[in-house]
Amino acid sequence: MIIMKKDATQAEIANVVSEASKYGVRCDVSRGEVLTIIGLVGDERRVPFARLEVMPGVKEVRMIETPYKLISREYNEVFRGKDESRVIKVKGVEIGGIEPVYIAGPCAIESRAQLMRIAEEVKCAGAHILRGGIFKPRSSVHSFQGLGAQGADEAREALSWLKEAGECFEMPVLTEARGESQMDLIAEYVDIVQIGARNMYEQDLLGYAGRTGKPVLFKRNFGASVEEFLSSSEYVAAEGNRDIILCERGVLPVGKGKSFTRYTLDLAAVPAIKKETYLPVIVDPSHATGRRDLIKAMSAAAIAAGAGGLAIEVHYSPAESWVDAQQAITPSELADIIDTCRKIHKITTGG
Amino acid sequence: MIIMKKDATQAEIANVVSEASKYGVRCDVSRGEVLTIIGLVGDERRVPFARLEVMPGVKEVRMIETPYKLISREYNEVFRGKDESRVIKVKGVEIGGIEPVYIAGPCAIESRAQLMRIAEEVKCAGAHILRGGIFKPRSSVHSFQGLGAQGADEAREALSWLKEAGECFEMPVLTEARGESQMDLIAEYVDIVQIGARNMYEQDLLGYAGRTGKPVLFKRNFGASVEEFLSSSEYVAAEGNRDIILCERGVLPVGKGKSFTRYTLDLAAVPAIKKETYLPVIVDPSHATGRRDLIKAMSAAAIAAGAGGLAIEVHYSPAESWVDAQQAITPSELADIIDTCRKIHKITTGG
Amino acid sequence: MIIMKKDATQAEIANVVSEASKYGVRCDVSRGEVLTIIGLVGDERRVPFARLEVMPGVKEVRMIETPYKLISREYNEVFRGKDESRVIKVKGVEIGGIEPVYIAGPCAIESRAQLMRIAEEVKCAGAHILRGGIFKPRSSVHSFQGLGAQGADEAREALSWLKEAGECFEMPVLTEARGESQMDLIAEYVDIVQIGARNMYEQDLLGYAGRTGKPVLFKRNFGASVEEFLSSSEYVAAEGNRDIILCERGVLPVGKGKSFTRYTLDLAAVPAIKKETYLPVIVDPSHATGRRDLIKAMSAAAIAAGAGGLAIEVHYSPAESWVDAQQAITPSELADIIDTCRKIHKITTGG
Amino acid sequence: MIIMKKDATQAEIANVVSEASKYGVRCDVSRGEVLTIIGLVGDERRVPFARLEVMPGVKEVRMIETPYKLISREYNEVFRGKDESRVIKVKGVEIGGIEPVYIAGPCAIESRAQLMRIAEEVKCAGAHILRGGIFKPRSSVHSFQGLGAQGADEAREALSWLKEAGECFEMPVLTEARGESQMDLIAEYVDIVQIGARNMYEQDLLGYAGRTGKPVLFKRNFGASVEEFLSSSEYVAAEGNRDIILCERGVLPVGKGKSFTRYTLDLAAVPAIKKETYLPVIVDPSHATGRRDLIKAMSAAAIAAGAGGLAIEVHYSPAESWVDAQQAITPSELADIIDTCRKIHKITTGG
Repeated sequence: MIIMKKDATQAEIANVVSEASKYGVRCDVSRGEVLTIIGLVGDERRVPFARLEVMPGVKEVRMIETPYKLISREYNEVFRGKDESRVIKVKGVEIGGIEPVYIAGPCAIESRAQLMRIAEEVKCAGAHILRGGIFKPRSSVHSFQGLGAQGADEAREALSWLKEAGECFEMPVLTEARGESQMDLIAEYVDIVQIGARNMYEQDLLGYAGRTGKPVLFKRNFGASVEEFLSSSEYVAAEGNRDIILCERGVLPVGKGKSFTRYTLDLAAVPAIKKETYLPVIVDPSHATGRRDLIKAMSAAAIAAGAGGLAIEVHYSPAESWVDAQQAITPSELADIIDTCRKIHKITTGG
Repeated sequence: MIIMKKDATQAEIANVVSEASKYGVRCDVSRGEVLTIIGLVGDERRVPFARLEVMPGVKEVRMIETPYKLISREYNEVFRGKDESRVIKVKGVEIGGIEPVYIAGPCAIESRAQLMRIAEEVKCAGAHILRGGIFKPRSSVHSFQGLGAQGADEAREALSWLKEAGECFEMPVLTEARGESQMDLIAEYVDIVQIGARNMYEQDLLGYAGRTGKPVLFKRNFGASVEEFLSSSEYVAAEGNRDIILCERGVLPVGKGKSFTRYTLDLAAVPAIKKETYLPVIVDPSHATGRRDLIKAMSAAAIAAGAGGLAIEVHYSPAESWVDAQQAITPSELADIIDTCRKIHKITTGG
Repeated sequence: MIIMKKDATQAEIANVVSEASKYGVRCDVSRGEVLTIIGLVGDERRVPFARLEVMPGVKEVRMIETPYKLISREYNEVFRGKDESRVIKVKGVEIGGIEPVYIAGPCAIESRAQLMRIAEEVKCAGAHILRGGIFKPRSSVHSFQGLGAQGADEAREALSWLKEAGECFEMPVLTEARGESQMDLIAEYVDIVQIGARNMYEQDLLGYAGRTGKPVLFKRNFGASVEEFLSSSEYVAAEGNRDIILCERGVLPVGKGKSFTRYTLDLAAVPAIKKETYLPVIVDPSHATGRRDLIKAMSAAAIAAGAGGLAIEVHYSPAESWVDAQQAITPSELADIIDTCRKIHKITTGG
Repeated sequence: MIIMKKDATQAEIANVVSEASKYGVRCDVSRGEVLTIIGLVGDERRVPFARLEVMPGVKEVRMIETPYKLISREYNEVFRGKDESRVIKVKGVEIGGIEPVYIAGPCAIESRAQLMRIAEEVKCAGAHILRGGIFKPRSSVHSFQGLGAQGADEAREALSWLKEAGECFEMPVLTEARGESQMDLIAEYVDIVQIGARNMYEQDLLGYAGRTGKPVLFKRNFGASVEEFLSSSEYVAAEGNRDIILCERGVLPVGKGKSFTRYTLDLAAVPAIKKETYLPVIVDPSHATGRRDLIKAMSAAAIAAGAGGLAIEVHYSPAESWVDAQQAITPSELADIIDTCRKIHKITTGG
């Protein structure tokens, strides 16, 4: 972290960047109102900080130990002089703003008709963003992998339906990119790229997602601590992309025998993460519980815990859903949940 | 599970109990409005069910596979014809009733003055039940184990303060029994006996607690699934004591590195347990998070998830607290939390 | 930790003990060949170390941060000047000595005949110590809890069989004490008291076990880190009883779906614990795997990892075993395992 | 799973393949000595099995529920009539054969000189295969990511050193592919492609690795059950590549506080996996323990448990190692380990 003097010139900044870059690190130049800070991204072991410290225009060199300095609230506060949370704007929807955002849609896109109907119904129910899976990560190669698995044409077609549904019902759209080879195609069609829980450690995929310039909905792995989750997010931020929406979706259950939920939703991670980073944090109660009958309780709890939004799987006829049928709710249940959540949000924010 | 005929006589019931008891099981006789059911407690492998089935007055014999049949909602519904939740009444306070209950007090009782002051302040803040630790379970033998560890006289004195504070401020009181040898003494002074998370697997201790006849506040072990938690509760119920208050207080965090909370609060367990059993479920956000700054968010979330109450550690001067200082909140913070929780409860119950 | 001068008198030592005891700690006086060390057991926060340091005969006061200083190798080395491992001698059997010890017997004692037959057969197979469960900890109150659960007379009878079998076949015997109320009775009959995995956190039970003066076979809880395991052992040592045999028996499996073993046997804990403490460490492959067909592989691996012995469940007819039938092996399988383990031990110790 | 009649013609087989393929599944045709079996890969929900069953040449259609049927021992036995383990031959080295294989080399390749020196020394110590990291997965973007992260030229150069070292010292070589974009490049230079623990759930990457046709060294994720590990392996096998070397490298530790090892090595998984699949299973004690002083004990234990080989990090000067310095051992320590392991292997296999 190199802090430049107030009156450092552009040339001085460029000089420092050029010098630091010789040692295999990239430079994240962040121009605040008062100071310009050059964050180093990568292996800093061989950077000769003593030499950098005496270069013209340099005010100070500070070592930041945290593995997620670019997204940390502390870094932002200390060096940029403000304690603000990030608001990500996508086609008129604000994520991380005052009101929680509701992301809804089918687990997997099954057909144009299915998607259009769900899109219309979730929009009416109060959802802001439309989700729909095309490339599905599955534990078994013998399960349905999404329409995207059926060929390049099918993938493109499903993506075009998603784009169309978003335009038709005026919602930004998102889908998951499971592998690097799908990234460019997906980025062409959607407003937000999702990186799923299974891929949280995929630094190459994360870097790729960051470079699309699209906001990234980033899910915590079920075996990862909060620290590992934030450290992984830093791979997106390191590409200069700070439009990261963090999503808690449950961790591995403990103990022997039945846990009665698919994963253990870690709601305390929501306020904990909000203290660590300025990024918005949302919750996915559908994958966390895997149980339709618990979605309302956990949605209410998530908003009460301070979540900036929810991602919920919705189907007009949950039992017919090709994937994860037992966790989808109906559009009218969604409307009821959003209504309850709005009231809770008002209370917890003193409104 | 032996279901007696509608018109079975007392003698017939007694006969069945006597016969079944020969095979090393105890009988839990439950007289409903319509039917009398004899639940067998213990190892059923050697019970000759075929012989019992043809005894006079017996309508039916049903095998129940679940390890927690006595406390299961299903057992209650199927055999007793009602789907009711249990309301435990202690000195005018209803646990499991319409309104959530708030249990508050110091982690450890340090002196009479400390306890009386906290009791008064948590009462004013809206708490219903007073808690205070006298026998503290600690990971290290070299830590403060509570006043109870300093001798029999000190233990009795601290218990008498607790009783006095409860009477003075009109609150039922509770403290933890860590070992069998403390149980009788504790039961003499308190209204509710607590079994802590570390002792969840202690079947002898659980049986002992059940036999005191006092309501038991029973905490989930941090390494236990919900099924194991309920199976352990059955040890209390097997003593004929169904006044069990289940308490979620967090499970072991996953992953490497920092989790930012002491344990992972499993809030989805609250509605999940409520579907399985008719017993009240409360939440302890203090031990779960170990962080004062997260208590409010997690209290609100717990009530939104449907918790029937909260157990919170309070100290007028948290920093001076001898144990767990970093997780205690002040009485005025408690008042604010109870106020918010009441509003949320009203919303989630459609009030 | 108070280190007395080389020429400190008995009176000086007694004075220090007396003074320290005023502050609610107990003193563990350890007379080495060169120095006498007074270890403080309990809450040290209020001990005025500055005052103790200037008392006659005191050489030095050192704060030890570890929660298991009494059993730590480092404490022993630094203050007592030797790096020795503890050898526990029970009726001619050395635990922690050069050769690994083999503990074998039925999961649960079912009858005198069953026990005598198994005792004879495991002795022939090469076992050194006889085990047999009388008080069985079980997840469900509706499972067989051991003969001890059937009444005081049955418990005493089963214990007398165990003692008889031990005398008859010249093996020390051990059984598990599950609750405080069984401890005195058990200690009357057996040579080694076992504290099971479910009870690892039971500090009152541990203290009680320590006070019997019998060697304690102490099992790691399935949700406990090695540090927690050692910290709990300190509760036994704090009673002045250092005859503690540590036993690794598996921790909770990770992930979703089948793990194919009952628990995850943490064999790296064996050499890791041996670096931390001077106590012997053994392994229980039966409960860890829950699979008869894996016992040999894991026994061999445990000895290769440096275990000082094995505890294995044996039944002449595993399928008839009342408890844990799927994990018991036959006496002839035991003989084969002991033979293989002896050869491996010879190799790994360079013999 | 479609089992063809003994005398089914090529045309009949092709017909069945063609028909099945219409429903979005791929066909894995496996011609045994007696029967030809067509395994379906992918989502089987929409395949009309009733129709396939009556096609000419079809003997029987069987549903296999396991998510890893292609690699399961049972599938192989039942349908192909043999219970054999797979032996993977790479440049004269047999993996899964009678003798365990030893894979050794630096954690990260640092320079040509470093690699050549280590290659020579591990060869002398008895290693069969040379490993060396070029693309390093790291928790923090601010850590050294391997020479491969410094640019395409650097990556190619490091790969060429690896190939050179392998040729020079007559060892097959392997390195990890962390992302899809590196796969083709890596496959051009190495004999075995490694997929690391963090990438175990990456189905796109696994498929890509499978399609290279190179043997794949596949590591278990630290949060995955054995069943999930095998289900993921099926993604490689589904590409027609059954040259998969499974590697256990430790799972997440349980409990609070210190575990004293980096991960918990699950050695019981070794024999458990060998019962489930015909693939070879090896162990990586370096990443599992993270401790140089435990490598020997855990290597010996792994071989005693039945591991088909070991992957060990070696550096001539461990303290100078750029990555994971605390877990590397010296070449002479490796020689000692291999010597001990050979003796243990001889004993456990009755040699």
